[in-house]
Amino acid sequence: MSGCVAVAGLGPGDDRLVTDEVRAALADATDVVGYLPYVARVAPREGLILHPSDNRVELDRANLALDIAAEGGRVVIVSSGDPGVFAMASALFEALERRSDPDAFEIRVLPGITAMLAAAARLGAPLGHDFCAINLSDNLKPWDLVEHRLKLAAQAGFAMAFYNPRSKSRPHQFARALDILRQECGPDRLISFARAVTTPEERLETMTLAEAMPEMADMRTMVLVGNADTRRVGQFVYTPRSAR
Amino acid sequence: MSGCVAVAGLGPGDDRLVTDEVRAALADATDVVGYLPYVARVAPREGLILHPSDNRVELDRANLALDIAAEGGRVVIVSSGDPGVFAMASALFEALERRSDPDAFEIRVLPGITAMLAAAARLGAPLGHDFCAINLSDNLKPWDLVEHRLKLAAQAGFAMAFYNPRSKSRPHQFARALDILRQECGPDRLISFARAVTTPEERLETMTLAEAMPEMADMRTMVLVGNADTRRVGQFVYTPRSAR
Repeated sequence: MSGCVAVAGLGPGDDRLVTDEVRAALADATDVVGYLPYVARVAPREGLILHPSDNRVELDRANLALDIAAEGGRVVIVSSGDPGVFAMASALFEALERRSDPDAFEIRVLPGITAMLAAAARLGAPLGHDFCAINLSDNLKPWDLVEHRLKLAAQAGFAMAFYNPRSKSRPHQFARALDILRQECGPDRLISFARAVTTPEERLETMTLAEAMPEMADMRTMVLVGNADTRRVGQFVYTPRSAR
Repeated sequence: MSGCVAVAGLGPGDDRLVTDEVRAALADATDVVGYLPYVARVAPREGLILHPSDNRVELDRANLALDIAAEGGRVVIVSSGDPGVFAMASALFEALERRSDPDAFEIRVLPGITAMLAAAARLGAPLGHDFCAINLSDNLKPWDLVEHRLKLAAQAGFAMAFYNPRSKSRPHQFARALDILRQECGPDRLISFARAVTTPEERLETMTLAEAMPEMADMRTMVLVGNADTRRVGQFVYTPRSAR
């Protein structure tokens, strides 16, 4: 066993949502690897080397972690949210698969509070029945597949959570996604925009699909769409446990 | 404001996966309400009244919490996992909706590590691409709807996580679910059974759908099915970030 790599979820932002398991891994680490804003959430200390990297270099980052571990380091790769949900865990296994010695590493995945569940908790319980999670970015899959999934998810009656709904480089796709949802679910279906949940910049908005505008989402926004039974109670939005 | 109710997720079992936010709510509570095995995870202390209840009385439990809060209590309803995923948050809002004074309560939902993400972390990263979560119990929805969702989820190419896959009162439905999955996904698709994750009784098994048997699941098991690209690396199973 040449070294160990833990890929850890820091949760959505609030330090009170970091698990003790993740804290213990960070306290024991020699090296922390990750996207710059996530590494910035780790308190510096003597004996801990921070390796912040840029966005969209997930495989390079995973390989850096494996290289350091191969030299005997105890490495933690930090993700926001949960590392297994559109984050670094899959990238680590992709990198591991390409190495000649995948069994030489001790790998641990340390779960965290993923953005959709933090957003759902702040909104009420919009994911209280069967639901799906879709990454709306077409960096790693064709946009046609996103459209296909949106249609089938709506026909299945899933509540839906969308990660990476809209970026500056592809502003029109989320508009198209809203069009598909209006067509499949009707104009009265509830949609919530939850931005930067559990941080000082948190902003929560719920409205009908008819009222939703593409500009309401950016890359720090989770978008949640209810199923046909999703409704408001007071300031909250929730999906009942039962379905017809 | 007559009282406050927090519905809190205790995570999958390991105490190191309970968030500080949940710990703080429990430390400040006058009353804890919940299904007996979850209430048993809360340390007793002077000034804290524990109200354990039986299974399948979610609305009664939610109303008990609201009644205590209406008298000025600070109540925490405990769920395992995350309260917003097939747990007590939706039941609380259902109960709240039926009260004459829903705005009289301060309600908070405190997220936790839900079973599917704890299971995914222990297995590797089987939910590393678009995925869905389906409750296989037909207590609160017709079984036909479950079958419909399974088929559409498979056609959409989602990885899948199944909660409550099989109980003694309905042993045949999970066998039927496996038949549908074999038909829609083929015999070589990977399926994982993750029982009692993060507890001393944890058991993890991954195999093909052809090898899966209904008896491998019970109510303490999370069942995860990969998408067409899900594969093994060493002892782990993961779903790549990209899709064709």
